[in-house]
Amino acid sequence: MKRIGILTSGGDAPGMNASVRAVARRVIGEGLEAYGINYGFAGLVAGDIHKIEYADVDDVIQRGGTMLYSARYPEFATAEGQLKGIEQLKKFGIDALVVIGGDGSYHGALALTKRGFNAVGIPGTIDNDIPDTDFTVGFDTAVNTALDAIDRIRDTARSHQRTFIVEVMGRNAGDIALWSGIAGGADIIVIPEKGYNMQEIADKLNNNREHGKDSGIIVLAEGVMGASDFAAELDTYGNFETRVTILGHTQRGGVPTAKDRVLASRFGDYAVQLLMEGKGGLAIGIQNNELVAEDIVATLEEHKHHTDLSLLDLNARLSTPR
Amino acid sequence: MKRIGILTSGGDAPGMNASVRAVARRVIGEGLEAYGINYGFAGLVAGDIHKIEYADVDDVIQRGGTMLYSARYPEFATAEGQLKGIEQLKKFGIDALVVIGGDGSYHGALALTKRGFNAVGIPGTIDNDIPDTDFTVGFDTAVNTALDAIDRIRDTARSHQRTFIVEVMGRNAGDIALWSGIAGGADIIVIPEKGYNMQEIADKLNNNREHGKDSGIIVLAEGVMGASDFAAELDTYGNFETRVTILGHTQRGGVPTAKDRVLASRFGDYAVQLLMEGKGGLAIGIQNNELVAEDIVATLEEHKHHTDLSLLDLNARLSTPR
Amino acid sequence: MKRIGILTSGGDAPGMNASVRAVARRVIGEGLEAYGINYGFAGLVAGDIHKIEYADVDDVIQRGGTMLYSARYPEFATAEGQLKGIEQLKKFGIDALVVIGGDGSYHGALALTKRGFNAVGIPGTIDNDIPDTDFTVGFDTAVNTALDAIDRIRDTARSHQRTFIVEVMGRNAGDIALWSGIAGGADIIVIPEKGYNMQEIADKLNNNREHGKDSGIIVLAEGVMGASDFAAELDTYGNFETRVTILGHTQRGGVPTAKDRVLASRFGDYAVQLLMEGKGGLAIGIQNNELVAEDIVATLEEHKHHTDLSLLDLNARLSTPR
Amino acid sequence: MKRIGILTSGGDAPGMNASVRAVARRVIGEGLEAYGINYGFAGLVAGDIHKIEYADVDDVIQRGGTMLYSARYPEFATAEGQLKGIEQLKKFGIDALVVIGGDGSYHGALALTKRGFNAVGIPGTIDNDIPDTDFTVGFDTAVNTALDAIDRIRDTARSHQRTFIVEVMGRNAGDIALWSGIAGGADIIVIPEKGYNMQEIADKLNNNREHGKDSGIIVLAEGVMGASDFAAELDTYGNFETRVTILGHTQRGGVPTAKDRVLASRFGDYAVQLLMEGKGGLAIGIQNNELVAEDIVATLEEHKHHTDLSLLDLNARLSTPR
Repeated sequence: MKRIGILTSGGDAPGMNASVRAVARRVIGEGLEAYGINYGFAGLVAGDIHKIEYADVDDVIQRGGTMLYSARYPEFATAEGQLKGIEQLKKFGIDALVVIGGDGSYHGALALTKRGFNAVGIPGTIDNDIPDTDFTVGFDTAVNTALDAIDRIRDTARSHQRTFIVEVMGRNAGDIALWSGIAGGADIIVIPEKGYNMQEIADKLNNNREHGKDSGIIVLAEGVMGASDFAAELDTYGNFETRVTILGHTQRGGVPTAKDRVLASRFGDYAVQLLMEGKGGLAIGIQNNELVAEDIVATLEEHKHHTDLSLLDLNARLSTPR
Repeated sequence: MKRIGILTSGGDAPGMNASVRAVARRVIGEGLEAYGINYGFAGLVAGDIHKIEYADVDDVIQRGGTMLYSARYPEFATAEGQLKGIEQLKKFGIDALVVIGGDGSYHGALALTKRGFNAVGIPGTIDNDIPDTDFTVGFDTAVNTALDAIDRIRDTARSHQRTFIVEVMGRNAGDIALWSGIAGGADIIVIPEKGYNMQEIADKLNNNREHGKDSGIIVLAEGVMGASDFAAELDTYGNFETRVTILGHTQRGGVPTAKDRVLASRFGDYAVQLLMEGKGGLAIGIQNNELVAEDIVATLEEHKHHTDLSLLDLNARLSTPR
Repeated sequence: MKRIGILTSGGDAPGMNASVRAVARRVIGEGLEAYGINYGFAGLVAGDIHKIEYADVDDVIQRGGTMLYSARYPEFATAEGQLKGIEQLKKFGIDALVVIGGDGSYHGALALTKRGFNAVGIPGTIDNDIPDTDFTVGFDTAVNTALDAIDRIRDTARSHQRTFIVEVMGRNAGDIALWSGIAGGADIIVIPEKGYNMQEIADKLNNNREHGKDSGIIVLAEGVMGASDFAAELDTYGNFETRVTILGHTQRGGVPTAKDRVLASRFGDYAVQLLMEGKGGLAIGIQNNELVAEDIVATLEEHKHHTDLSLLDLNARLSTPR
Repeated sequence: MKRIGILTSGGDAPGMNASVRAVARRVIGEGLEAYGINYGFAGLVAGDIHKIEYADVDDVIQRGGTMLYSARYPEFATAEGQLKGIEQLKKFGIDALVVIGGDGSYHGALALTKRGFNAVGIPGTIDNDIPDTDFTVGFDTAVNTALDAIDRIRDTARSHQRTFIVEVMGRNAGDIALWSGIAGGADIIVIPEKGYNMQEIADKLNNNREHGKDSGIIVLAEGVMGASDFAAELDTYGNFETRVTILGHTQRGGVPTAKDRVLASRFGDYAVQLLMEGKGGLAIGIQNNELVAEDIVATLEEHKHHTDLSLLDLNARLSTPR
């Protein structure tokens, strides 16, 4: 083992740079060489590869986005793409690879491992929707970004006695909605894992008004529907002075939180250790505060992300006046 | 002079509470009594009025929104509304009134003064579009909120080589777009005070790409058009991998900046001073760092807000590779 | 069970208000009444007790400090103090009590339970030094506050090629230092759980310089020694252009993070549930993401807080150039 | 005119990078070349000089510190140093120089201009203590950083009924103390431009307590004395439960505010314009919202910075209960 490569793939997430740094620092600290691959698997195939020196990852731990850039590259699902990628890795003398990203990244890591090139995956996505890990790199930051927006919106909601529908990210998973909603004191949280009953929502808002609470926040995960459609549907149940805010891509960037930086650092360090032990085809995660590495096939094909639905009940209990 | 009232009206803006506090503190410090009127002119007419004690404005200087709430109330344009409002003021023994808000608030203050009840207006709106003042309370905070979002979005834009169109508030004035755009390193800023040429914008983005800059930020004031429409139009000029983010109401809330709190405090203090001198019908402002009070009729009917269009040229100079 | 009381005690921590809100909301939601006790055990003995209505905890989830105030009150260690406290509780018809705070608060809760009055403790302190819980309310916010300061200081450290010694809170526990240090990319972290060797520290800084890294950050937990003394000692080993910053009380306040608000909400909700089940003398915590309730005697007398010392090794691995 | 150089000198200030970017961008936009000089005048004399490409200043506008580094270099006060510096400038073909910093930087710019090499100064320091400009680059950010800390401290002050003495930067000028103090709702602000009377301060705190305000914030500029000494002296006048926090170097770093970035951008752009017009020996500033350029000799030797002492009176009026 002499050279370890690293790439980021899929949507960027705050903390990816902290993982890149950790991988590079651990690699260099072990006397090996670290190689960065730009633009994910696209750059791998294209050979956009460079050595990372110790100083290159100085002063990056706090930066959002990814210093290695990212790109979509469905072509890596083909044998041709994979073989070309391995050819490039060999050309640069790279012996193993760390891949940071989500589902697609894991598939890439698996494909390489199957072809005899050890690769491990680090879960990096704001959505927290990756199996076999309690938390992904970027989730905590995205939740706090959404929360900051909700705090701001509540100022206006209260001042003007309005009901705001705040659309947060989360196509398949309601984690961002649940955490930012509870922390933001939302009246109602709507997530894709669970149906909603608009009549019940309207009843709750009406009940709030009867108890003197004349403003409100509904946090809606994008995977359920768009906020404007939701508002239109809700408006057929009464006049709640609804306003809509779609947080959008602001949730994807920004200075990572302490938790995301520590998690990213632990993941990066652990990934190098596994590769040095000759292991590949693994999905790294954190479960019950312990680092784990699962077989990436099982992660991709058998396991599921479990959203903590008890948080939905908690929020209901904490937002119901009598 | 014994009692001075205060109300907030129109859209809420960060720093309104700092003005309420300053009015109340100065009034109480002068040995007079401060009365808060909830829900703007609606609450005035309805008599939703209460005494403000010194401790009531403790710990509010940092809060967004308005502790006195706000509401639309077009009925105050009528003689009936105004007379009813004055009746309530007399009932509570209030001798003069400070009104914090925008255009509509100024009209209310003018109407009261014309009917013999002295009122002065403090410019409070995030849009900075009020004549006779260089800055309004809330503008600096809104710009920094928009800037924070632009900083986050740039992380993703750079990581993914995309062009983001960020829609900021500003129906008639491009001030938020100009300031947040320059500070955010925008490639292009589009404001309602000036037309745009989509071909030139596309040429500029293409020129950027030729010079190696493959991501970009366009800051668009909502008064020009919606960001989605803008993106659709731009897409007919080439493939710029555009994405759209609408910042929306997040710009209206949040902890006010130092500048907004200091400005709000100065305005509130000055408003009380003017009223104690028996003056009314004035629009308070800051010009060249000095507090000023203009005749509110002239402010409303003759003067205009002047957006600093030289900032547009500045941004063009700072974002053009050769 | 009709009335449940709540008090905060010891040093304030961000998220305490989120716990107060959760307790009050759950209590009210169950059809019971919530009573707030001001100034901790001092206010309990003095009878500074008031009913908390649903609206009283509206808009407090995001606020630092504690709306119930806090105070030192060693007198509650005496039988006299405890009996007087129970007398007040009975006078107000309060049937059970939630206590939010650290060690001292737990002793108070235990004393009341031993005298037949059920009380449970919620761990609220920025230091994370309470046994039987992986995390305390306030810790995540304090770490992020310290991290924000470290990020700022690194700007100056890098610009001026200096070594900063940043003193963070933590008298007995190095948790804040470890988390903020790793997340802040510290070169060295010094905590009370482990000795330090100043020669090794100097060697490391010298090695960094030889590898081109001419600025640095040392994060020092206050429990080891003061930062000025540390700098003076380090200066005897070489000229490292040291500067000292003591973060101090800024770490105790501020808007709580999402994680702290969610944790505080879960704790508060769970505390009420336990009391409604007739349980008392329990220390609430979170272990491996699950809510737990331990016998408070065991927590106080037998169990210890375990700082994750593996983080120290992690940081060493990630900060050593070769 | 073909090449324009730029350096930063003295203490770093947020927004310096925005000025470097603006100078480089304007220079490149004009078809000229920009050269960066590392480590201020030390690097100038040592020839640590490099060409700045357009992309080099991409993504730096939001960064604290200075990408050109800074260093003390008293040797530049000598003829030898200056001649050596000019020699280096000629060697690199640099025709004019922009210097960003404070007093020392201006002296350097003056010395070069006197020797026939045109240089202009941009005021960059958090202290706002430079003559001939209403605001310096970095001041607004530093004020907001101090304010953020004061907001946090108030949470604890209120929760524990304590009086905090917060020491902010400002050796000669009380600007940071005044702005952060007013914005932070300080009870008392103490600045070097004006004496203080400890008996009056104690009386005011006592008066506050009599009016029910049992916590407080005193903002103290470091130029008056250290916070610990101040607390010790105050304690001889009564028991105010004082605590001390020294904000220190955290005020020097961080992401610059919108205002600082816009100001820095305008200054940088204007500096290039002046140099292209063949002008040198000028101190750039902003007065009444207009860019100005004063003779740097007059700025250094005749003019003074004027702290707005009316803010002190304002704060007194807004913090006095009756």
